[in-house]
Amino acid sequence: MDFEQLLVSYFNDDTNSKVKEACLYALQGKGKRIRPRLLYSVLEGYHIDKNIGNDFACALEMIHTYSLIHDDLPAMDDDTLRRGRATCHIAFDEATAILAGDALLTKAFEITSKNPINNSIKAINMLASCAGINGMIYGQTLDIEAESLKLDYEQIKKIHNHKTGCLLACPLAMAAIIALKNDETVNKWYNIGIKLGLAFQIQDDILDLISDSETLGKSNSDIENNKQTICTILGIDEAKKLMLDLYEECENEILSFKDFDAKYIFEIIDSLKVRKF
Amino acid sequence: MDFEQLLVSYFNDDTNSKVKEACLYALQGKGKRIRPRLLYSVLEGYHIDKNIGNDFACALEMIHTYSLIHDDLPAMDDDTLRRGRATCHIAFDEATAILAGDALLTKAFEITSKNPINNSIKAINMLASCAGINGMIYGQTLDIEAESLKLDYEQIKKIHNHKTGCLLACPLAMAAIIALKNDETVNKWYNIGIKLGLAFQIQDDILDLISDSETLGKSNSDIENNKQTICTILGIDEAKKLMLDLYEECENEILSFKDFDAKYIFEIIDSLKVRKF
Repeated sequence: MDFEQLLVSYFNDDTNSKVKEACLYALQGKGKRIRPRLLYSVLEGYHIDKNIGNDFACALEMIHTYSLIHDDLPAMDDDTLRRGRATCHIAFDEATAILAGDALLTKAFEITSKNPINNSIKAINMLASCAGINGMIYGQTLDIEAESLKLDYEQIKKIHNHKTGCLLACPLAMAAIIALKNDETVNKWYNIGIKLGLAFQIQDDILDLISDSETLGKSNSDIENNKQTICTILGIDEAKKLMLDLYEECENEILSFKDFDAKYIFEIIDSLKVRKF
Repeated sequence: MDFEQLLVSYFNDDTNSKVKEACLYALQGKGKRIRPRLLYSVLEGYHIDKNIGNDFACALEMIHTYSLIHDDLPAMDDDTLRRGRATCHIAFDEATAILAGDALLTKAFEITSKNPINNSIKAINMLASCAGINGMIYGQTLDIEAESLKLDYEQIKKIHNHKTGCLLACPLAMAAIIALKNDETVNKWYNIGIKLGLAFQIQDDILDLISDSETLGKSNSDIENNKQTICTILGIDEAKKLMLDLYEECENEILSFKDFDAKYIFEIIDSLKVRKF
């Protein structure tokens, strides 16, 4: 079973409903599946059977997808295109989209608590904390509050570190937890993930500026709203340099783990560097 | 520390934000705290220190509150009054209300996974499953889909059993899990909770018909929308009889547990029978 089939299989036993349809619709958009891939790559680097991380990999994708559904709502970014298709509230309706987001978020915790493995509860706590009021949601609220303000580099970075960084740091930290690494190592992975998230977000901003929405598969509401980004503040060349520096810092920090085979996660980072959407 | 202080204390270490304010605003409405009280009453009935259930009690109230916030949104029931005050999206704004709901739901899982006790992960799974796509959220989607349909008693009951029943069954089942009871006993408690939920909901419908919104502390959108209820189908007298029968069935089933002191939960049921809001 490949990852796409696995992700959908968690809904096999669920009662049919419009909300279930909406969950599956949103999940089955052409996502890059970066968070699951990052989790798997760290498990593999620690020579652990990657399938042990299946529940957590799918939970990450569910939480990421819920955040996109709610972020696209009319009251939030009001976007109409996502992953190459109509956003959830356009394809269904607003009430269904709200509930589908709620259902995906809840399901993430249902599937990670169903068949516990080593350290499951610690990994669940990491997941909730990264997604929550001091993590991703804090980033969302900063983002909304900042809408009409003029921000400097540090302020935008703070938004990114929470809105994007926390849920990209989460798979690395969770994988280290599942691999039974100590708190210091878990924290180190977490901080690498935050850096990776910033590089990823700067790249998103660059792609938003130079690509059309067909290539991106999503509407360009940030550009339409003249939203400030690190890219508009630093300029494309400077932003690109910063992004590459950040990726390199991540790689060097990963290489400092003596018991870790970096080849799997480096494959992902290499693919991220050249991504077009 | 009383329950109200405890509930709020989970936010003490969180970064300040509009979403945090909105979470606290919604939580601090005059709720009846029925779900936490039910959880505590079952722990006490099993002669277990009730404070062991604090995280789960507060998580229940957070999930209940998130469901109210999202249910009140313009795209859902579009209500303006809740727990005697402006609904969250009126007091703040729609985006903040959506995020506050998301934050409360996420926090429920964060606080229950932070300091694990016996069987925590099994209780977390019960919580997620009761709140999720086959539980409370299924009830919400049935409710939305039913809006323009003419329903019979069984169909309305199915909505109630999911929308209200699941999250009232949850504290009873979770308390039995925390008390290390076997699956059969946990299921029995769950089914009692579903029955209690139906009685509770029928009573809500009766109160909606005979009370004003000032007493209820919430707007009467169901009445305004001419929504069918068990009460409108059976008539008030018949509905009242059904409700009292259901409460009695619950009591008899609770008395059948030989190792359980029913006095604490009976106090709650007695107070429910005479409630005015």
